[in-house]
Amino acid sequence: MKRLSTEIIYIAEQAKRASEALANLPREIKNGALLAMAKALRKRKEEIIRANKKDLELARGKGSAFIQRLILEEKGVLKLSEHIEKISQLDDPIGETIEEFKGVQGLHIKKVRVPIGVVAIIYESRPDVTSDCAALCVKSGNAVILKGGKESLNSNIAIANILTEATKEYLPEGAIALIPTREREAVDILLGLDDYIDLVIPRGGESLIKKVVEKSRIPVIKHYKGVCHIYVDEDADLNMAQEICYNAKVQKPATCNAMETLLVHSGVAVRFLPLMVKRFQEAGVEVRGCEKTRQILDSISKLRIKPANEDDWQREYLDLIISIKIVQSLEEAIEHIRRYGTKHSDAIISENKQRAEEFLKRIDSACLYWNASTRFTDGEQFGMGAEMGISTDKIHCRGPMALRELTSYKYLIYGKGQVRK
Amino acid sequence: MKRLSTEIIYIAEQAKRASEALANLPREIKNGALLAMAKALRKRKEEIIRANKKDLELARGKGSAFIQRLILEEKGVLKLSEHIEKISQLDDPIGETIEEFKGVQGLHIKKVRVPIGVVAIIYESRPDVTSDCAALCVKSGNAVILKGGKESLNSNIAIANILTEATKEYLPEGAIALIPTREREAVDILLGLDDYIDLVIPRGGESLIKKVVEKSRIPVIKHYKGVCHIYVDEDADLNMAQEICYNAKVQKPATCNAMETLLVHSGVAVRFLPLMVKRFQEAGVEVRGCEKTRQILDSISKLRIKPANEDDWQREYLDLIISIKIVQSLEEAIEHIRRYGTKHSDAIISENKQRAEEFLKRIDSACLYWNASTRFTDGEQFGMGAEMGISTDKIHCRGPMALRELTSYKYLIYGKGQVRK
Repeated sequence: MKRLSTEIIYIAEQAKRASEALANLPREIKNGALLAMAKALRKRKEEIIRANKKDLELARGKGSAFIQRLILEEKGVLKLSEHIEKISQLDDPIGETIEEFKGVQGLHIKKVRVPIGVVAIIYESRPDVTSDCAALCVKSGNAVILKGGKESLNSNIAIANILTEATKEYLPEGAIALIPTREREAVDILLGLDDYIDLVIPRGGESLIKKVVEKSRIPVIKHYKGVCHIYVDEDADLNMAQEICYNAKVQKPATCNAMETLLVHSGVAVRFLPLMVKRFQEAGVEVRGCEKTRQILDSISKLRIKPANEDDWQREYLDLIISIKIVQSLEEAIEHIRRYGTKHSDAIISENKQRAEEFLKRIDSACLYWNASTRFTDGEQFGMGAEMGISTDKIHCRGPMALRELTSYKYLIYGKGQVRK
Repeated sequence: MKRLSTEIIYIAEQAKRASEALANLPREIKNGALLAMAKALRKRKEEIIRANKKDLELARGKGSAFIQRLILEEKGVLKLSEHIEKISQLDDPIGETIEEFKGVQGLHIKKVRVPIGVVAIIYESRPDVTSDCAALCVKSGNAVILKGGKESLNSNIAIANILTEATKEYLPEGAIALIPTREREAVDILLGLDDYIDLVIPRGGESLIKKVVEKSRIPVIKHYKGVCHIYVDEDADLNMAQEICYNAKVQKPATCNAMETLLVHSGVAVRFLPLMVKRFQEAGVEVRGCEKTRQILDSISKLRIKPANEDDWQREYLDLIISIKIVQSLEEAIEHIRRYGTKHSDAIISENKQRAEEFLKRIDSACLYWNASTRFTDGEQFGMGAEMGISTDKIHCRGPMALRELTSYKYLIYGKGQVRK
């Protein structure tokens, strides 16, 4: 514990020192570093695949979803490399003048964008996070401390080594650091280092995020769960509703922006639900419903589905499961989302402008959709080029978190000798 | 403890419910509430003064600085009322479209400003915070939970009662709430209520802020200490430097933006320091210096000053005390500030543009001044109209924190049936 603590403090100190140099690194150098990173990953892909195989062997017996997150084959490594090249082409947010204004006595004030400083990412078994997050931090002038899950340690070490070696000539020492341990205490130690680390971003399951929030003395931006809703209004275009709901549930159910609960206005339930549920079931979706939903499905199409209970309304299935509830009004839909939602992404399908605006206005989620799939909550789809994840916090940044969200600002005040009266 | 906990959870639940209604309250109603608050404070000022006298009696024997922060006389109450009227006249930040852009497939995306939700303020003995913070939160559509220091409890209860009674017809119940207790556990209970409270702002001494950071599961924006520096460069206009340094130290030494350490380039120390120190001493400032400073003052003007030690460089005196250090270069000044500064406000006095820009670029403080006093770090001086305080965090907001900094945003996405490919 003592040794581990000393080691982690050393890494954090070095990261802090690196962050001072990184803050003013010219963009050509940062982009040079990124291209060198991309090239090195391609060139040394066999090393990564070998290390990943070790991780896979140790993970034998785990579920297939777990293995899917862990596995990195040649195609995967090349993708990491492409991501980094793409990040190198994005605009550099650092140094941008956000605002310029006059204070009292003619003080000239400029608000300029600066990096946050040292960012620690605590994540689980996905080794691609190692390279994506390192690249985003380099581009935004932040030093990064990576603490991945124990299951992907070999892969993470291989990737981090390649990245640090490739950037030796470009970046200060310690700009990209990995905590190379499986010891659990490492996270606790990191979370106490508020003298060195400016921000912690936990990515992963609920229990990881809860633990980080509980223990951290450093500001945390949570990438928490998404219990996303779609409300099909009485004035919905039902064909459009069907396409959107199908996409939001089926296209990639394991993501935080997939729909978990479908709310349907009672006025269209009989016309909408039988066809919709049939399509869901054909796609292998397990459908659970409120009492009314079950009655309609049973009486019209002789479909028997499981009942949805209180627990279902709160569940982020992340799987081919959906819960359906029939509501009497927009008001009831809003109440349901306020009560059970996680302020991530929610949608209304309606041709009624007034009701749609009411929905967008009264629900407080990071992303609110009118006639589009919740699956668009994503930095790339928003045109941000890349993303760290989706913030479910309301402090600092909300929704897709990309380069600009990895920055802070400072005020520069130009005077002519002014003193305060 | 159980009873207290139940009571505080009830207040927090009510605040959360209130925040849903507050988020979309028309600005005329919010301004109506503010004017009613201002009017009621003026009308019922005797009640406040009476309650404040009780607090003062209980505080007998405390230091004069303490009493100064606690006391509220007629003039003080009228000032609170004026503050609120001023806040009512500021622009309402809520609903503003911050950005509007296109996502993939022609999705139309709007980023609009929304309140944070429920803001808890934890503060010490200043009862004026009760009314200022309540007014800023009402204007920005946030519900506010106030937890003041035990020494000002009677004053706080009187003010909060007047404010809630005055706004009954305008605001939902629970929009402005005070935790009316002296019990210490109240803060611990509050800091665990992350289901209801979105942000905690601690205002006060170092130990209060440390405790809040340690225990909170809710995001915290720290209003921490300011160890502010002024660096007098070798190319400084020494008259200007003298006026600025005098102002930054003497005009209001108890504030976080007052200068604590003066760094002087060795090339101008002999010309600058004897006069400057004489002026400081005439104003009652206790001067402490590095070895070189002491030698110069002793040999030129036969002035004996105390030595400044390692501890001095880290101290926020908040008093008529200053530490002085002679440095050999801009580089050394930057190193000193990086090591001992608190990233609050720092200034360079110089006629040399290149060196000034180097200083502004390489130091990472919320506010960096070129040829002006650090005392300008203040929402009002920046033209923001009012302030919650000065954030020393880099997450969410930095420097003066006013109405806009009490907001978050959400994305509204307008589609025509788009689904993700």
